[in-house]
Amino acid sequence: MTLEGCYLGVDGGGTKTEALIADAWGHVLGRGLAGPSNPYFVAGRAALRAIDAAIRAARTQAGQPSIIRAALCVPGLRRHYDIDTLARELGLGVEGLVVEGDDRSSFYGALGGEHGAVVLAGTGSFAMGVNRAGEQVSVGGWGPILGDEGSGYWIGLHALRAVIRAHEGRGPATLLTSLVMAHYALSDIAELRARVYGERESQRGISALVPLVLQAAEAGDASAARIIADAGEALAALGITVVRQLGMDSADYDLVLAGGVSRLGRWVSEPFRAAVRAVCSAINMRGPRLSPAGGAVMLALRAGGVAWTSKVLGNLVEASIG
Amino acid sequence: MTLEGCYLGVDGGGTKTEALIADAWGHVLGRGLAGPSNPYFVAGRAALRAIDAAIRAARTQAGQPSIIRAALCVPGLRRHYDIDTLARELGLGVEGLVVEGDDRSSFYGALGGEHGAVVLAGTGSFAMGVNRAGEQVSVGGWGPILGDEGSGYWIGLHALRAVIRAHEGRGPATLLTSLVMAHYALSDIAELRARVYGERESQRGISALVPLVLQAAEAGDASAARIIADAGEALAALGITVVRQLGMDSADYDLVLAGGVSRLGRWVSEPFRAAVRAVCSAINMRGPRLSPAGGAVMLALRAGGVAWTSKVLGNLVEASIG
Repeated sequence: MTLEGCYLGVDGGGTKTEALIADAWGHVLGRGLAGPSNPYFVAGRAALRAIDAAIRAARTQAGQPSIIRAALCVPGLRRHYDIDTLARELGLGVEGLVVEGDDRSSFYGALGGEHGAVVLAGTGSFAMGVNRAGEQVSVGGWGPILGDEGSGYWIGLHALRAVIRAHEGRGPATLLTSLVMAHYALSDIAELRARVYGERESQRGISALVPLVLQAAEAGDASAARIIADAGEALAALGITVVRQLGMDSADYDLVLAGGVSRLGRWVSEPFRAAVRAVCSAINMRGPRLSPAGGAVMLALRAGGVAWTSKVLGNLVEASIG
Repeated sequence: MTLEGCYLGVDGGGTKTEALIADAWGHVLGRGLAGPSNPYFVAGRAALRAIDAAIRAARTQAGQPSIIRAALCVPGLRRHYDIDTLARELGLGVEGLVVEGDDRSSFYGALGGEHGAVVLAGTGSFAMGVNRAGEQVSVGGWGPILGDEGSGYWIGLHALRAVIRAHEGRGPATLLTSLVMAHYALSDIAELRARVYGERESQRGISALVPLVLQAAEAGDASAARIIADAGEALAALGITVVRQLGMDSADYDLVLAGGVSRLGRWVSEPFRAAVRAVCSAINMRGPRLSPAGGAVMLALRAGGVAWTSKVLGNLVEASIG
């Protein structure tokens, strides 16, 4: 009577929310985008509204299929809402609903598979791995004060510190100075202090400086290039720890650098690869295979008993990134 | 009719408040101590009450002399109270009242004179200098996120990061682990996260770890020794910048490392001195001459037209530190 059911994956965070609907073969039928849905960042019911909007858009594009399994991968969702509320508000069946953090969708999306290691560097940073014995290790992710080495926040902060050192004659002049001043629309570097300490979302505000650091590096600025390279090496240290602890240094395993920072291209990937290769001789380094929303669909498929065959994943890869 | 007037100096901060009363020859007649008076840290009228208590104790010890000049050196006092309120509440004459930040009392106290450079490392860090041409430079002091390199906060933070890295197998085992766990009364390192991010006064709470880092260094822990040495080098970088910008690299000038971090002894002073000496061949490095409260008395004396002769300063040194 009904068509065969479909699988819904939602990945949400502090910037945007993406929903993907696929069939059991991994063919993507619909996609929807909406604003931020991290309930730690958006007030009241805005998180639910964003998730709902993304799902509705994907459902419309997919022709309103029935959803038999759904995976919601949004940080903190479990802490803010119980599963009955989520199912009711989003029009999803409670039985088929999986709720996870966005670390899971990012991990499986980046690997496009079950085993291997992922270094995730967005606003924060951490590394996670699973080997074929089923052992799991996760390191980093200690937040902006204690950790998050090599993250977008970390890169932005080091850019600000380079601007200050240049201003005080404690470090070389840098293109970052004019870029940062223009970004904040400041005329006096002393005002940086008020901006950084006054801003409520200083963690995300500082991460927003990452594109300026890339711009400066591409224009030949040595300070900017050094900051990104240091980030690559710090991220490599996270990945190396996971790879070693799980005994994964072989060509059978992938190590993937994913997240917004990975989009800094060779500026970050070359120092990352060099630092990993210096101690891990055999692991296969590559970029992410699927988007985090693709990873969320993978979780929905698995919840429905659909195996992650290369055929299914190949279809998902094609539509979710390509 | 009245006895010749006396000079009152008050140095206050987030930890304690000290008042010193001296005569025009620098003989200290009374001293008073009280709790914290930094109005950014203590609520309501507690700052004024602490300053008042310290002054009353010093006045009592000195035999209730008349105060003809007073210098109140407490961060943020000018922002929180107007000078009439301060004079009225503290029973001081408005005309003879000087209100400054504690950076001034610390600077003049550390130098015990007018010219030279001081690196101040307490909870935060900065360096300041004045040369004989009257030029003044100050660097650092950008707060816990943007700066404060080598400060107590910085040392405590690096200790926490070393504990995390050891815990995750990203760094060597360290004695700091057991010391930090005992300090916070934690059984699980994962709880550090909640402690550090949850604590309101995390800046001061983290600075409070400095004695543990010293304890670990003295027990032979390499991580702890390295953290303190790195702090010494970071503080040297601040001092070097000031010395160079003011052209003060000669034996005629002093460079003083002062503040709570300087009490880490050779662990911090040896790397500090080595790093300074590597680029500044002639400047005279030494410890602080007077306490910050002594520096506050110096400011009161100057406001009263009393010259900082070696006789006057010698008397102050004897009583304020000796």
